[in-house]
Amino acid sequence: MDDDTRTARWERRAGTPLAVASLLFLVSYGVRILGEGLPGPVLDLSLAVLYGSWALFVVDYVVRWRLSGEGPGFVHRHWLDSLVVVLPLLRPVRIVRVYDAMQDRRQEEPRLPLQARVMLYAGLASTLLGLSAALAVYHYEHNAPDASIRTFGDALWWAVSTLATVGYGDVVPVTPMGRLVAVILMGCGLALLGAVTGSFSSYLMQRFARAGDDVGPPGR
Amino acid sequence: MDDDTRTARWERRAGTPLAVASLLFLVSYGVRILGEGLPGPVLDLSLAVLYGSWALFVVDYVVRWRLSGEGPGFVHRHWLDSLVVVLPLLRPVRIVRVYDAMQDRRQEEPRLPLQARVMLYAGLASTLLGLSAALAVYHYEHNAPDASIRTFGDALWWAVSTLATVGYGDVVPVTPMGRLVAVILMGCGLALLGAVTGSFSSYLMQRFARAGDDVGPPGR
Amino acid sequence: MDDDTRTARWERRAGTPLAVASLLFLVSYGVRILGEGLPGPVLDLSLAVLYGSWALFVVDYVVRWRLSGEGPGFVHRHWLDSLVVVLPLLRPVRIVRVYDAMQDRRQEEPRLPLQARVMLYAGLASTLLGLSAALAVYHYEHNAPDASIRTFGDALWWAVSTLATVGYGDVVPVTPMGRLVAVILMGCGLALLGAVTGSFSSYLMQRFARAGDDVGPPGR
Amino acid sequence: MDDDTRTARWERRAGTPLAVASLLFLVSYGVRILGEGLPGPVLDLSLAVLYGSWALFVVDYVVRWRLSGEGPGFVHRHWLDSLVVVLPLLRPVRIVRVYDAMQDRRQEEPRLPLQARVMLYAGLASTLLGLSAALAVYHYEHNAPDASIRTFGDALWWAVSTLATVGYGDVVPVTPMGRLVAVILMGCGLALLGAVTGSFSSYLMQRFARAGDDVGPPGR
Repeated sequence: MDDDTRTARWERRAGTPLAVASLLFLVSYGVRILGEGLPGPVLDLSLAVLYGSWALFVVDYVVRWRLSGEGPGFVHRHWLDSLVVVLPLLRPVRIVRVYDAMQDRRQEEPRLPLQARVMLYAGLASTLLGLSAALAVYHYEHNAPDASIRTFGDALWWAVSTLATVGYGDVVPVTPMGRLVAVILMGCGLALLGAVTGSFSSYLMQRFARAGDDVGPPGR
Repeated sequence: MDDDTRTARWERRAGTPLAVASLLFLVSYGVRILGEGLPGPVLDLSLAVLYGSWALFVVDYVVRWRLSGEGPGFVHRHWLDSLVVVLPLLRPVRIVRVYDAMQDRRQEEPRLPLQARVMLYAGLASTLLGLSAALAVYHYEHNAPDASIRTFGDALWWAVSTLATVGYGDVVPVTPMGRLVAVILMGCGLALLGAVTGSFSSYLMQRFARAGDDVGPPGR
Repeated sequence: MDDDTRTARWERRAGTPLAVASLLFLVSYGVRILGEGLPGPVLDLSLAVLYGSWALFVVDYVVRWRLSGEGPGFVHRHWLDSLVVVLPLLRPVRIVRVYDAMQDRRQEEPRLPLQARVMLYAGLASTLLGLSAALAVYHYEHNAPDASIRTFGDALWWAVSTLATVGYGDVVPVTPMGRLVAVILMGCGLALLGAVTGSFSSYLMQRFARAGDDVGPPGR
Repeated sequence: MDDDTRTARWERRAGTPLAVASLLFLVSYGVRILGEGLPGPVLDLSLAVLYGSWALFVVDYVVRWRLSGEGPGFVHRHWLDSLVVVLPLLRPVRIVRVYDAMQDRRQEEPRLPLQARVMLYAGLASTLLGLSAALAVYHYEHNAPDASIRTFGDALWWAVSTLATVGYGDVVPVTPMGRLVAVILMGCGLALLGAVTGSFSSYLMQRFARAGDDVGPPGR
């Protein structure tokens, strides 16, 4: 109970710095991947920011491990957190923790209905995940000899058509690493986007049901 | 409460003109895009109708803003309405408002079951959205040098196969603007179509459950 | 109430002949489409069976119209039945009526759980619809100059990959009529298959929940 | 009741050997398909393991048939088990039985929440099914004259993009047997993956709802 409280207090305090670090990580990763023509110092700076934010993620992981009071079982039991420390581009999938931290902060504000919150967070996580995947795929593909993903625009277009499960196939990864990124994007992204679709469908059903009640006799 | 009533009264009164204006907007947009060989006056007329109906949308937005008594926060809080004023082709996504306005009108008629209403409205909104996207994609694509969408028939075929998430990839947008339209269609359309599928599934489960009860012992 | 009973009695009596007629319709349609090398009399016979079963569908429609005691509004109110009389290949979508008729018949047998029934009927309807669509698409496509659907095997492969929303795009309809068939297949089939997936997911959740209860303390 | 207990006791005892046999079957099948350059004795051994584990499946089927005390109706009533005896590659779809056997074993451990269990088992079954399908498709395709699936990596990439219903179409089966494998993968895999998506969506809704309650007044 006490550990739980201390963990919760840590998450409240570390929430904003970690969110900023996540954005900085994504931006500096993007600069590293896309900024080929940029001057050297900018690239060096982005590399420093990249590793700096990654270091913050590791610190957060270690602190939470300590606070939990668990032994080596922590790595196994919080496998998603452990995976995200190794592959920081997957941070958007830790959507529930972000949501919890946010919810603690603005306790007093009027809250959105449940489905809108699910759509907002799952939609945001899908977007960030798609962006990360587009960057990674562009990195692995754009110099491959028979690549169809040649520009970052192609990579974005591929990421969106993959997340939506449309999969035109006009641009596809051809390298093993590019395909591995694609497999991860499909696995994580489809579940997230399915949550968006499902909660929108649920919202519509509920909204139509409520609207139907509104026009009914008031005594009902 | 009072503002709410005045807004509701406005929506009841403005509902039919706005629905007609939406159809006129779509038709005149279609004439502009497809009617290359039409005589000049017809094209001028369609342009006038296009801007006229758009002006009506703006008037409706401003009136609702005024009636709400809210300050600049209205733009942020009703972000979907604000977006639709800027991009009138997205009007079909305002499905819940259309549904509310319709429901007020024909209060006395026997109402469809909930799932049928969701399927009807979401299906209609998907159809109109697909039509708008086909027009816009045709506009941006049919003159592109290496386009695969060359006729309006291709554009319709592309829109349907995208909405259904089948995505054959035999015809795909290749220009940045065409791909932007596609991304918007995927985002809005898949959620709407997911609602159709979900409510049909729910209807079937309910219908089969009810039928099962009918043949069971009456005492049950 | 009395009309209802007479309609129900008609449906009980007409159920089996109509199911047989539906199968005969599909088989004779298949013979007409695929049986190019068959001797003339066989083709003539299949044409006779085709129109004979279609005539039965019309008779059934007219009888139910009469029994309902409704005026011309019947056509509008039972629009699905009206559509199916004009396009008999769409008969599989009338799944709920088939289910009702079947359920009346074998009242005494042990019944499957709800989700299994939904999966069974929706799966069967998808299969028959896919078969009809493959026949129709093969008919319109296999002689087109730049067709990719050249054999009936291609058409079946296309129908399955379309129903599953995979849509590889290696074989796609290119004629306007073939694409129209595809649009109808996507519209009807995806909803049916969505019902299969949804009810399987629901079954799994329920089964796992029940199994969890089984191992819990017996007093629960 | 007594038969039921004896069946349950058999399943508890046979669970682990059968799970091991399933893995051995998959591994030896993989060695047979992929191990073209391996020395003869290894291939002979893998063939022996293949048929040995298959024989175990048959023994398990026969024992359960005997224990059930049912006549030939057993084959029809347990059609999924009967099918899996003939096509052992489909064993992953018997997910509910595996789950039951597992649940009996570790009765005392803290159990995962319902949705996590569904995601775990359905996700595992999809993975194993996709692996089996990739092996089978590679077997039938990689020597076909106009094949696009030439390496096992291609086959894995094809299986993942098919299971996710993305279906790029850059690599597709072209032989009749390869397409048959694909049809089975679509049929079984999509339902399993739909269960993963659906239970994740349900988990997210529940988690967000609970989190919302946590920040509410404690008296609620």
